[in-house]
Amino acid sequence: MTESRAFVESFALAPTASGELDGLRFAVKDLIDIGGHKTSCGNFSWRDTHPAAASNAVCVDQLLSSGAQFVGKTVTDELAFSLLGENHFYGTPLNPKAPDRVPGGSSSGSASAVACGLADFALGTDTGGSVRVPASNCGIFGIRPTHGIVSVAGVNPLAPTFDTVGILAKDAEVLAKAAAVLLACRVPERLEVDRVHLLHDAFVISDVETTDALVPLTDALRELFPGRVVSTSLQEMVGDYGGEPFQEWYETYCTLQWAEIRSCLGSWIEDANPDLGPRTRMNFELTRNLDRREIAPAHQRREELSERMNSFLGPGALLCMPTAPAVAPLKGSLGIDRRKCRYHSRALSLTSVAGIARLPQVSVPSAHVSRAPVGMSLLAGRGMDGFLLAAVRFLAAEKAVLASQR
Amino acid sequence: MTESRAFVESFALAPTASGELDGLRFAVKDLIDIGGHKTSCGNFSWRDTHPAAASNAVCVDQLLSSGAQFVGKTVTDELAFSLLGENHFYGTPLNPKAPDRVPGGSSSGSASAVACGLADFALGTDTGGSVRVPASNCGIFGIRPTHGIVSVAGVNPLAPTFDTVGILAKDAEVLAKAAAVLLACRVPERLEVDRVHLLHDAFVISDVETTDALVPLTDALRELFPGRVVSTSLQEMVGDYGGEPFQEWYETYCTLQWAEIRSCLGSWIEDANPDLGPRTRMNFELTRNLDRREIAPAHQRREELSERMNSFLGPGALLCMPTAPAVAPLKGSLGIDRRKCRYHSRALSLTSVAGIARLPQVSVPSAHVSRAPVGMSLLAGRGMDGFLLAAVRFLAAEKAVLASQR
Repeated sequence: MTESRAFVESFALAPTASGELDGLRFAVKDLIDIGGHKTSCGNFSWRDTHPAAASNAVCVDQLLSSGAQFVGKTVTDELAFSLLGENHFYGTPLNPKAPDRVPGGSSSGSASAVACGLADFALGTDTGGSVRVPASNCGIFGIRPTHGIVSVAGVNPLAPTFDTVGILAKDAEVLAKAAAVLLACRVPERLEVDRVHLLHDAFVISDVETTDALVPLTDALRELFPGRVVSTSLQEMVGDYGGEPFQEWYETYCTLQWAEIRSCLGSWIEDANPDLGPRTRMNFELTRNLDRREIAPAHQRREELSERMNSFLGPGALLCMPTAPAVAPLKGSLGIDRRKCRYHSRALSLTSVAGIARLPQVSVPSAHVSRAPVGMSLLAGRGMDGFLLAAVRFLAAEKAVLASQR
Repeated sequence: MTESRAFVESFALAPTASGELDGLRFAVKDLIDIGGHKTSCGNFSWRDTHPAAASNAVCVDQLLSSGAQFVGKTVTDELAFSLLGENHFYGTPLNPKAPDRVPGGSSSGSASAVACGLADFALGTDTGGSVRVPASNCGIFGIRPTHGIVSVAGVNPLAPTFDTVGILAKDAEVLAKAAAVLLACRVPERLEVDRVHLLHDAFVISDVETTDALVPLTDALRELFPGRVVSTSLQEMVGDYGGEPFQEWYETYCTLQWAEIRSCLGSWIEDANPDLGPRTRMNFELTRNLDRREIAPAHQRREELSERMNSFLGPGALLCMPTAPAVAPLKGSLGIDRRKCRYHSRALSLTSVAGIARLPQVSVPSAHVSRAPVGMSLLAGRGMDGFLLAAVRFLAAEKAVLASQR
């Protein structure tokens, strides 16, 4: 447990009732309240300027009363504002599948705890990829649910129109069980898939090694859903917005995310003058320098893109793309300015599709590149979380995806 | 302006750009950040234990950059946790249409400012009716949008799965214009209504005077949409849940709202030991005493009800019901225990439909009872905000609803 560096505090909380999650152990990102304990949000100044939580976050109580046992609070990137998993104060949780590489963030400790076998599943949060990217990096399963379904009461906000509570899990069965409770959804036994869209532009912007490594999975999809797998471009889905593919999505996402982060956390930063890591300090500078007249047009673009994408995806459609554009970066290899980092802008381009269109997305462990895991993602229409989880469970049962046992 | 008691602070902020809202003045509930100013959330202890806002809430910047002029911060009920509009610290904003009655809350000052003609529209928040009920009481228009569309960044949370930012407006035209910006939606010129459901159970639980007063409006609907207006019960919409009509909705709403409020505000209350008004103190006691094992089953019921209601309402359907079960209560007439207050439980029963099912709802000024205004509400399917606003604009143009001029 110490070796994993996944935990901020480890202690047990017994289930408050018996239920569907009997016998399962879960960990919780230290951005989500556990009653009687401080929520540090990955930053010492935050921890020292806020009181202990009076009660558990709503999502934690849902799990405890369904039979699951809490085992500890896990490391998060500072204020959840990173995709890397390198915390200036709390260190870098172990990626056991690739110890020289980052676990991914911001739900770094939750991914590490599950990948190390210290929990069966863990709660994370996902604003711009913070569950999906660490799931991909650590070779486990991770869901970002449809926005707004899971309560964020007792979860520190970052950018509310994108913030979600998600789950990292060791296998598809545990993922479906935990998600059924957390999302209060049914995961149907019978699966009817009309169409699987391989998102052409997403494969193009990813590293060729990643794209190549995912060929066996796309081949398996063609075998499992004969005649229903097609390659589709963003332009076919939502029309032509000019510029490079993803440019509209990425820029719209950044504008809205930065605007919301400034509104949610700016007052504390100005008032408390907190000690921030160098990367976090630079990130917050970006949010402060945004021209806020860009917010209204970005909102307009968001709603247009969201409406078109959701109209395109019928109830039986899946969308498939690499979760991240590359294998996890080597530890300490990336600079501190996210705008100059091609890994970062490509990762956010991919993750912004679910973010902007409010879609559910599951990353499944799918292949290896340089002996490190890479994940493939399946997405479905807004509110189709149960259908998506059934599809993931089906792929796992058919051995189309990798098992994520240690 | 002083006479209205609607404002906490009145000062002007010029538009940051020109746009669709040129020439319109708006006020903002003091639960929503204005940069450089304290957000009191209607409570002196809150004001004194929190720093000034570093920037405007995202929703405020959307309006400023679309040409609207800010005119002031308006009184809110303490921490937005009331439907009455009687603030122990800031007093009761004037209901100019019925000065001996409450304006309704928690967006009391926003409703008062608009009804008094001091703003063309105002931002409020609506968790369990806090825009809709004051709109009804003050004889103006008010929208609660589909949950999750408008950013709550910079808006103090109460119960996040129900929290929305809404608009109070003097007429249907201003409402549609301001909402088109805030929700980033199109309000179509052409209106196609398939069906108008008069929610039978909602008319039954309302005061007979209110129901009778609304007959001319339902008659007008029958004339405007011949053969398409039907009386429908909750049971026909979502099936039989046993118990009284609305019981399932009301209880599910209360459980989830109290759980979320405790998770959002409990830590501050325990830590800061704030000075609270007697009604607010009792409300927070309720949230503290909730058995949190009730959360998970309440979430399950919520998703079931929400899914069934949204399946029932097609894209062209409207749902129609009284906004509140009665005319605004006389000032000082209600006790402090909400559980013993029939007005309160009936009001929340009505408002919980949109809350639980995440539907947009507009209250339109429709009639008078005891010379005080009562509103009728129209609701539509989730995400059908543009359609709903077009329907309201159509009814106003046809003079089926009352004008809300002073």
